[in-house]
Amino acid sequence: MNVITDPSAMQRAADGARAEGKTIAFVPTMGALHDGHLTLIREAVGYGDTVVTSIFVNPTQFGQGEDFDRYPRDLDRDAPLAADAGCDILFVPSQSAMYPGGHATFVNVEGITEVLEGKSRPGHFRGVATIVAKLCNIVKPHVLLLGQKDGQQVAVLRRMLRDLQFDVRLVVVPTVREDDGLAMSSRNVYLTPEERAQAPVLCAALRMAEERIRGGESNAGVVREAMRGMITSKPLASIDYVSVAHGESLEELVRIAPGIPVMISLAVRFGTTRLIDNTTFTL
Amino acid sequence: MNVITDPSAMQRAADGARAEGKTIAFVPTMGALHDGHLTLIREAVGYGDTVVTSIFVNPTQFGQGEDFDRYPRDLDRDAPLAADAGCDILFVPSQSAMYPGGHATFVNVEGITEVLEGKSRPGHFRGVATIVAKLCNIVKPHVLLLGQKDGQQVAVLRRMLRDLQFDVRLVVVPTVREDDGLAMSSRNVYLTPEERAQAPVLCAALRMAEERIRGGESNAGVVREAMRGMITSKPLASIDYVSVAHGESLEELVRIAPGIPVMISLAVRFGTTRLIDNTTFTL
Repeated sequence: MNVITDPSAMQRAADGARAEGKTIAFVPTMGALHDGHLTLIREAVGYGDTVVTSIFVNPTQFGQGEDFDRYPRDLDRDAPLAADAGCDILFVPSQSAMYPGGHATFVNVEGITEVLEGKSRPGHFRGVATIVAKLCNIVKPHVLLLGQKDGQQVAVLRRMLRDLQFDVRLVVVPTVREDDGLAMSSRNVYLTPEERAQAPVLCAALRMAEERIRGGESNAGVVREAMRGMITSKPLASIDYVSVAHGESLEELVRIAPGIPVMISLAVRFGTTRLIDNTTFTL
Repeated sequence: MNVITDPSAMQRAADGARAEGKTIAFVPTMGALHDGHLTLIREAVGYGDTVVTSIFVNPTQFGQGEDFDRYPRDLDRDAPLAADAGCDILFVPSQSAMYPGGHATFVNVEGITEVLEGKSRPGHFRGVATIVAKLCNIVKPHVLLLGQKDGQQVAVLRRMLRDLQFDVRLVVVPTVREDDGLAMSSRNVYLTPEERAQAPVLCAALRMAEERIRGGESNAGVVREAMRGMITSKPLASIDYVSVAHGESLEELVRIAPGIPVMISLAVRFGTTRLIDNTTFTL
């Protein structure tokens, strides 16, 4: 595995791969690699001759008071994991290489960024869309792989790629979970043992909601209330939001009907740790 | 010359050229080609094996009440002019191909878009940055050629290309002028004969300002007032702005000093027609 830190060198490597007729598959990450990321990298091997993984903790997607400073960083641990999963090029740029002085350009996806995570984390998706646009211009991928775990991020980036006409194919990979259902996340390491024991309630609430809908419940409000009830039964859990929304517009649904894509999602705090999870389906 | 209307077909043509090791030089235009555009295309021949010119009247850079509807459109006239100048591929997408339903993503360059043209035309540079980002993702150029005529546009797009890390080299071509100094512009056709006769005052004011500065005048306010005086001597001219600004930050200067890049620029209305011009230099 080749480790590249300079964006221009990455562009030259991408040009070289493309000149040889190779397909580039790209997995952007913030490091602290877990089985979710590694699954994305393993999947990427099937989509590309050259698999590129980036590790960059992107400051513009963190709000004030969020965990940018304490976000886990451990390249010595991450690099061999990425290599073992099939990564050919690990792109690890510095903060100053990605945001040199005078950086003033941002990519905004309007509308769908203002709800759910965007409401709780103003500016978050502006930072996400901007960094992914930049990374696509540096890595020049044919295929971009994202995890379904960040459901709204998938919806926002799908829109961004389409609207800005990036010649990049998006592949979405299902969420990877611990045995008890907890979605893999770099933030899970923040949880105390007591919080960790209660955290699977996110996944349990999503499964319960989907089961009730598949069992005939069409009232979205009833489903939200049932999820809230299940989550608040855990004393350490504090709900940020519970959503039953249209899967593309991300607008809250009143009623679930056949043929309408649904995204059920939620954000729950355990102490200072904020966890998210989601499921998508169409009846 | 090949005419392409479909963005995906343009991407395939760009991939094909790149696969053959060809360099793509790109001139984005809104059509109504004049000698300024044709000079850009002729210059592009020196920078690329494949010269691509786009013609697209971009709605998102026009404000309400601006001239989007009446902006001159004449492909039958433009196409042979582009071909004669050396264009290999003329990319002429439809409105719906560039802005399909649900388009929600915009590229914002902050700060330098809020002064001068940006102040008079809110949203203009958001539209410009967005369409050029889209066109770069479609045409995949190695070199982008822009005219100095739109001086702030050059500054904004230079920042955008750098900030979003487009692997594109920017080449800026000097403004092409009529014999009497009037900068070539597609909007010159709107001028009545009387307005046309007075319009060279823009260029004359810029030349006078630069001469006074090179002659020792360092007070930017004095230079602005001298320009205002010269322009208001023309009865049909109505000043929108007169600026003596830093050439990169575009902030108004108090004093002109050696080593500081200067952009002198102005916007003047003749009836319903708004003309702009500028000159840049460093003492």
